[in-house]
Amino acid sequence: MDKTVCEKILSGDKRAVAKLITAVENEPGKCEAVMDSLFSHSLAAHRIGITGPPGSGKSTLVDALTVSIRRKKPTSSVGIIAIDPSSPFTHGALLGDRIRMKRIGLDENVFIRSMATRGALGGLCAAASDAADILAASGKEVVMVETVGVGQSEVEIAQISDTCVVVFCPGTGDAIQTLKAGLMEIGEIFVINKSDLEGADRFLLDVRATLELREREKGDWEPPVIKTVATEEQGIDELLKEIERHRDYLSFGDRLKDKRVEAVAKKIRGLVRNTLESSLYTPDEGDQLRTLSESVLSGKVTPHQAARKVIERIRGGRQWAIGNRMKR
Amino acid sequence: MDKTVCEKILSGDKRAVAKLITAVENEPGKCEAVMDSLFSHSLAAHRIGITGPPGSGKSTLVDALTVSIRRKKPTSSVGIIAIDPSSPFTHGALLGDRIRMKRIGLDENVFIRSMATRGALGGLCAAASDAADILAASGKEVVMVETVGVGQSEVEIAQISDTCVVVFCPGTGDAIQTLKAGLMEIGEIFVINKSDLEGADRFLLDVRATLELREREKGDWEPPVIKTVATEEQGIDELLKEIERHRDYLSFGDRLKDKRVEAVAKKIRGLVRNTLESSLYTPDEGDQLRTLSESVLSGKVTPHQAARKVIERIRGGRQWAIGNRMKR
Repeated sequence: MDKTVCEKILSGDKRAVAKLITAVENEPGKCEAVMDSLFSHSLAAHRIGITGPPGSGKSTLVDALTVSIRRKKPTSSVGIIAIDPSSPFTHGALLGDRIRMKRIGLDENVFIRSMATRGALGGLCAAASDAADILAASGKEVVMVETVGVGQSEVEIAQISDTCVVVFCPGTGDAIQTLKAGLMEIGEIFVINKSDLEGADRFLLDVRATLELREREKGDWEPPVIKTVATEEQGIDELLKEIERHRDYLSFGDRLKDKRVEAVAKKIRGLVRNTLESSLYTPDEGDQLRTLSESVLSGKVTPHQAARKVIERIRGGRQWAIGNRMKR
Repeated sequence: MDKTVCEKILSGDKRAVAKLITAVENEPGKCEAVMDSLFSHSLAAHRIGITGPPGSGKSTLVDALTVSIRRKKPTSSVGIIAIDPSSPFTHGALLGDRIRMKRIGLDENVFIRSMATRGALGGLCAAASDAADILAASGKEVVMVETVGVGQSEVEIAQISDTCVVVFCPGTGDAIQTLKAGLMEIGEIFVINKSDLEGADRFLLDVRATLELREREKGDWEPPVIKTVATEEQGIDELLKEIERHRDYLSFGDRLKDKRVEAVAKKIRGLVRNTLESSLYTPDEGDQLRTLSESVLSGKVTPHQAARKVIERIRGGRQWAIGNRMKR
């Protein structure tokens, strides 16, 4: 990819942005140079992760938040990455291009992009992080990444942000309890959406009580819990206020820098991991692995001996070309 | 770990089984030798993965299935690994030791063990697979592994089985749609549990219709869809019949062997991955990574250059000791 792509992105060219996001999804290895050039331009945006159980109304909330941001400051611009659980059958995002496009899709200053989770094992996090970098570099002041808050990778994606918003809705106990686990510790702001439903107040108290268990030192951010009804735009301005308050909180001392260092460390680890893993997923390696697995099954080699052989082979002859992210 | 541990496991010693499962969770590196010795003894059991959205009633179904297996053949024995989403706050499985213990916990021929997902990023799959091997080697004819069917690792665990059972329940459209994605392709048997609820028949048709989209060749297994009410033991015998039919199906030709080769290949890849990753998570490496991340943020190094440096360092001096699974 030549230099002009980079220039186009920096000037906010929507088509170039869309094309590059597709490229980082499908051929990340070919995008290294341009991503490296864009990186330093991607640091100005405020990154917001939005996550929560399926059905909690994340998309509607993101839409309402976007409308609110745009209304408050008409010159502002927003980028949205929505990670959709998807099916390998249909080869596409399950929920497709949603109704949401009607509300904010026509706004010139808003860019929405869905990314599918299909087949992206290990690579999804990298692709989502690249896509967020691209939107940030293209001049979006706010970049929101929306994921379903279940599953380790999915939760991690939302966590790699400056401000992580966790969205719940009041609902059947058991399922929500299960889904809540693992989300309570990552949120900087908690939202009880659909708070016009029965049980919202009890649920809010429940969330607050769980938050009390979080270890916190003096001066640490105290996560607020906000009630919203995204479909009615209720509570959205308050949510936006809390997001801005968290951004201001981060601006003191090294707080933002510390968060970003951690995010970059995750990015580097991800790149390293993908490079290392890619060597395990070549067709050639697949054949050898099959033979080795048969030897394990027939008792000629133990599982750990087999693993040792693979590592020796990887360490031995191969080139570790960065840019061969794992493909399946 | 000495030889006697292995002998104790093979003789079905419950305490030794429990201790070794704890060890593979906490110190997998120390269990290599014993796991290697047990492996060839772990191949006789029929492994059943049970997965589905939270609230679909998996635990109750597993319990009912266990009762049914035990009733049908009183000499049989069953091992159960339940993977619980858990919270780092409470440092334990969220749902804890459940009511289930009342029904089957006192049965001498049944072994139930909960494993928590906490902090096991990358390692959960390995620990669950080891635990299943231990139960199989201890003489359990049927080993069931139950996971929440959301999240990539969680789904993968259920998939590494001879027979994968996917459990749904009729419910609110949106949430279920989202959760269904990714589960439709992995099931060999589908269960609509809580089928006394409204909308069960429509949901069943919906699942069948989605299954029609699955590409299938002649002679391939045709996934049945079964209605159950686990709390009432309705449909459980039919489910057991289908599980046995699938086991018989696998016994023809190389079908079982092919499945197992694939599972072993996944195991080996997991071991290799954990070994490679462990070198990225030492405290020493953490410090170096932090410095490197700071250089990236200040623009001295690009992300990909940083990744290349880490790989060079890993490739360079270090010993690749198998047995240092990633620790966080």
